[in-house]
Amino acid sequence: MTSPIHVLGFAGSLRKASFNKRLITIAADVLPPAMTLEQFDLAPLPLYNEDLERESGLPDGVQQFHASLAAADALLIATPEYNFSISGVLKNALDWASRAMVDGRPSPLNDKPLAIMGGGGRLGTARAQMHLRDIAPHNNMHVLNTPQVYFIGVRSAFDADGNLIDPTVRERIAQLMEALAHWTRRLRGF
Amino acid sequence: MTSPIHVLGFAGSLRKASFNKRLITIAADVLPPAMTLEQFDLAPLPLYNEDLERESGLPDGVQQFHASLAAADALLIATPEYNFSISGVLKNALDWASRAMVDGRPSPLNDKPLAIMGGGGRLGTARAQMHLRDIAPHNNMHVLNTPQVYFIGVRSAFDADGNLIDPTVRERIAQLMEALAHWTRRLRGF
Repeated sequence: MTSPIHVLGFAGSLRKASFNKRLITIAADVLPPAMTLEQFDLAPLPLYNEDLERESGLPDGVQQFHASLAAADALLIATPEYNFSISGVLKNALDWASRAMVDGRPSPLNDKPLAIMGGGGRLGTARAQMHLRDIAPHNNMHVLNTPQVYFIGVRSAFDADGNLIDPTVRERIAQLMEALAHWTRRLRGF
Repeated sequence: MTSPIHVLGFAGSLRKASFNKRLITIAADVLPPAMTLEQFDLAPLPLYNEDLERESGLPDGVQQFHASLAAADALLIATPEYNFSISGVLKNALDWASRAMVDGRPSPLNDKPLAIMGGGGRLGTARAQMHLRDIAPHNNMHVLNTPQVYFIGVRSAFDADGNLIDPTVRERIAQLMEALAHWTRRLRGF
């Protein structure tokens, strides 16, 4: 028997037709056995402000994010590349997530296996993914090394209606999720 | 005669008593001759969403930010370090700033001289500043190389009422602004 793994997946872009949101949706469709995936939209998170937190605790949207993170065995992030790095939207979400839980436990990011992928232009989010790999250790996240999943010219993988027309995208994301399952079970010892 | 230089300064933290906001305020107090500084608060910027921009153009707060950037001869950023990088708040502001002007001109960040400083804990925002240096070239900003201004243990530079008690902070920021003035005049040739 394989032990169940629950993954929380989110994209670093807010627009409805975001390619990176689509990548998360594709991941949900190619999960290996005993893996489930919840998709989380980062839009309800306010900009991080320590005053907010001190005055009235974590805002509602942040509490929901914390709860979904805490319930996950592993994380999946699809990052766009904005200005040679991850988006402010994604960094802001990680900044909120990095805060200790309301009950004093460590951040819900702590000790989480993390798979990264991204779809972009000519370099396919390579620079954004490097910055994300720099950031992850601060919260003791364990980033999967391989496969490295960069979708170069991601726009051309979809038709005008948003349907996936490049089958290698599904294949590579399936490989990533399989590797994340293996990595997660290896880290927790079963 | 020295030609006038107008600087736009902003901090990557939103809390009222932010140490990095205080560093910008100190900069405004130690400017070299013929330099002026406007402080900008990043709080009114929404999270970046390309849908917003397509549906109704740049939001009001973003337009004000663009206008202040465009009016500046040089930029000054005081960055905190969150999770080994710049804050999501700062990255989000740069993501908005990186968008082309409404009238089709390049981003108002284009070709701007930029001075960086930061106040933080044990490493004084060194990692955040490195990420900011990675990001700056995307918009053709020209980052001042020296002096590198990292305030390690910045909290101890102020008393409980927020008054600066470490005179070296003023001195180092004054050196930074002097160097920014020189760098700006050198780049524009007068």
